[in-house]
Amino acid sequence: MAKKVLKFGGTSVGSIERILHVAKIIEREHNANNQIIVVVSAMSGKTNELLANAKSVSDKFDKRELDVLLASGEQVTSALLAGTLIELGVKSKSWLNFQIPILTEGEHSNSRIINMNVSKINKFLSEKGVAIIPGFQGISKNGDVTTIGRGGSDATAVAVSKIFDADSCEIYTDVDGVFSTDPNKIPVAKKIDKISYNEMLELSSLGAKVMQPSAVQTAMMYNIPLEVRSTFTDRHGTKIFDQENLDYSKSVTGVAYSKDDAKVTLTNVQDKPGVAASIFEPLSKNQINVDMVIQNISVDQKTTDITFTVKRDDLLKTIDTIKNNKNIQYKSLTHNDKVSKISIVGAGMVSTPGVTYRMFKGLAEEKINILAISTSEIKLSVIINEKDTLLAVRKLHTTFDLD
Amino acid sequence: MAKKVLKFGGTSVGSIERILHVAKIIEREHNANNQIIVVVSAMSGKTNELLANAKSVSDKFDKRELDVLLASGEQVTSALLAGTLIELGVKSKSWLNFQIPILTEGEHSNSRIINMNVSKINKFLSEKGVAIIPGFQGISKNGDVTTIGRGGSDATAVAVSKIFDADSCEIYTDVDGVFSTDPNKIPVAKKIDKISYNEMLELSSLGAKVMQPSAVQTAMMYNIPLEVRSTFTDRHGTKIFDQENLDYSKSVTGVAYSKDDAKVTLTNVQDKPGVAASIFEPLSKNQINVDMVIQNISVDQKTTDITFTVKRDDLLKTIDTIKNNKNIQYKSLTHNDKVSKISIVGAGMVSTPGVTYRMFKGLAEEKINILAISTSEIKLSVIINEKDTLLAVRKLHTTFDLD
Repeated sequence: MAKKVLKFGGTSVGSIERILHVAKIIEREHNANNQIIVVVSAMSGKTNELLANAKSVSDKFDKRELDVLLASGEQVTSALLAGTLIELGVKSKSWLNFQIPILTEGEHSNSRIINMNVSKINKFLSEKGVAIIPGFQGISKNGDVTTIGRGGSDATAVAVSKIFDADSCEIYTDVDGVFSTDPNKIPVAKKIDKISYNEMLELSSLGAKVMQPSAVQTAMMYNIPLEVRSTFTDRHGTKIFDQENLDYSKSVTGVAYSKDDAKVTLTNVQDKPGVAASIFEPLSKNQINVDMVIQNISVDQKTTDITFTVKRDDLLKTIDTIKNNKNIQYKSLTHNDKVSKISIVGAGMVSTPGVTYRMFKGLAEEKINILAISTSEIKLSVIINEKDTLLAVRKLHTTFDLD
Repeated sequence: MAKKVLKFGGTSVGSIERILHVAKIIEREHNANNQIIVVVSAMSGKTNELLANAKSVSDKFDKRELDVLLASGEQVTSALLAGTLIELGVKSKSWLNFQIPILTEGEHSNSRIINMNVSKINKFLSEKGVAIIPGFQGISKNGDVTTIGRGGSDATAVAVSKIFDADSCEIYTDVDGVFSTDPNKIPVAKKIDKISYNEMLELSSLGAKVMQPSAVQTAMMYNIPLEVRSTFTDRHGTKIFDQENLDYSKSVTGVAYSKDDAKVTLTNVQDKPGVAASIFEPLSKNQINVDMVIQNISVDQKTTDITFTVKRDDLLKTIDTIKNNKNIQYKSLTHNDKVSKISIVGAGMVSTPGVTYRMFKGLAEEKINILAISTSEIKLSVIINEKDTLLAVRKLHTTFDLD
């Protein structure tokens, strides 16, 4: 007998028919003698509909009330799913945020789950009941309804898995798992059977939006085995483990890309200690996230060029911040928002020589110009012109034997 | 400074535009230096939509989960309205069922409000905050979400008025108030400025569905002044008071009618003590509500005819119950579901001679046949053929100087 947390995303519970289908998946797992806790999202489109209502009142709709509004979405799914399970003859019960309670801390719309009371639900599980919990929300110490920011219902599922000491956490969604690259754009993309938390993090933060990165991070921290799988097929999905439990036949696990970056270059910046801080401190203070930073080697030992990337949405704010800050000295500022970032990710990279060379050679063969490079233990990213995006991804997918 | 409870029905909060309009009404009352507690319904159509979802799963959808599902409707309105008030610069806050809490007892989908904690909300009111409370729901002693059956959000508004010791309770709806008869069918119908609880009860239970009868009953029990008025005009509505505070220039206040009755006659029933009980006890046990009962004078002192009315929906069940009960002895059972009930209502009737005579004379002038008669202190009802309904209402409206 295992204790399992099953999480169903918005499209999985997007209609009564789909909720019935989900209830049958749960019934099957329950009949296999597992203890089941289910975490649900709002029905697909519901959260956006509620958000649109709030926005039509005000762009700055009160955050406390926005949380009360949005939390209703998962409440609806919880009740419908629990009622459907009962109709199938499965003992079940919805547990709302205040009934568990799911204690959170932090500000509205961006809170974090810090604890839950497990005794009542554990008793219910031991009596063969299936507990349904609304994702994405909780209750503050003051008794206010809060929603959790990053990670949403995935984060709830991982938190439930941790606090209830579950054996596994299955994330049911509308894709078959994690792919070696975007299967919608690159038909030869392959489903990955097993992947490490770190690789998953690099892939998901790079646009493979199968699972929320912060939820993966929490799972990694507490070593909770995850499986991302489709609600709509019986096939196995992608298992996400600790790196040590995986063996790597391939140096590269996947190729990710994103098109929401912009590149900024400052020329003739003084090459002396503290100059980088003088640039990036005001950006940080303005909530601008700097991703890659490349500083050229100083030829004259006096000045250098600094290139960095930010989210495309932050480009104007970035330029304004730099131009308005008298402490930043440079000759010219150029920028380019027609760029994309291509990354190869693989926990096996560190132990495989020549990966960098093969990447650059592959791109050179397609005459793709590299505008910037950044490396980490398990990731190698380059900035290229946006028009070359798919060509580059396809080439690297082949180069690293992922087809 | 007065403490006011304002209740807004589903059509009053049926869209963002209407919620903004409602917020402005509240702002005006708040700026007039009143302490304001608002009770809201779900947006119009929302409860039916949620119910339809549950019904498409099962006709016997689990009642605990149904309550969780339906309660989300008023939660959404509460958050949207509180957020809109804050946007207008009015301090406001939604208080969900468990946050007050609104304590209920009784079974799911049919619970009653028994108490609320007033201290936090009273403190908020004294700090010039407008408290928004979702109608139609509460929390049981076990911490389960419940919905209150009869009276819905009107009952919540009256309970809030009582528990918070409010000076008045205003029911904002989509009609201008209570009318002397149905204004949609009888154009000469007039809005009633003042009416007693009793008259309102007789009118509302007879089809003038402006306010839920059980809510009026509670208001009467605790002498809470009500006003039913339109959200969409600035005109005064109908004030509902204790009878003693009204003076009556007219003997009849209104003419009501309903078309959901059916008439059943049993002939040659034995005329002896206990025979009525033998008929009505099994009906009562089958949850069939008997409305009017007429027993003819026994001619031969041995048998008599008994006529009674039930809701049309209950007719088949009524016939089955009587036929299957061997203790009920009679010669023949006839029934008629093409009847309607016409009632004249007025607290002044009791002190005005000739009302009965004038009613019968009026109907006779139109050659309308009376099938059964029933009287109370403030009401006189007749059963007639359904086809004569509007003719009868129009005639009586004129007869009693209501045009």
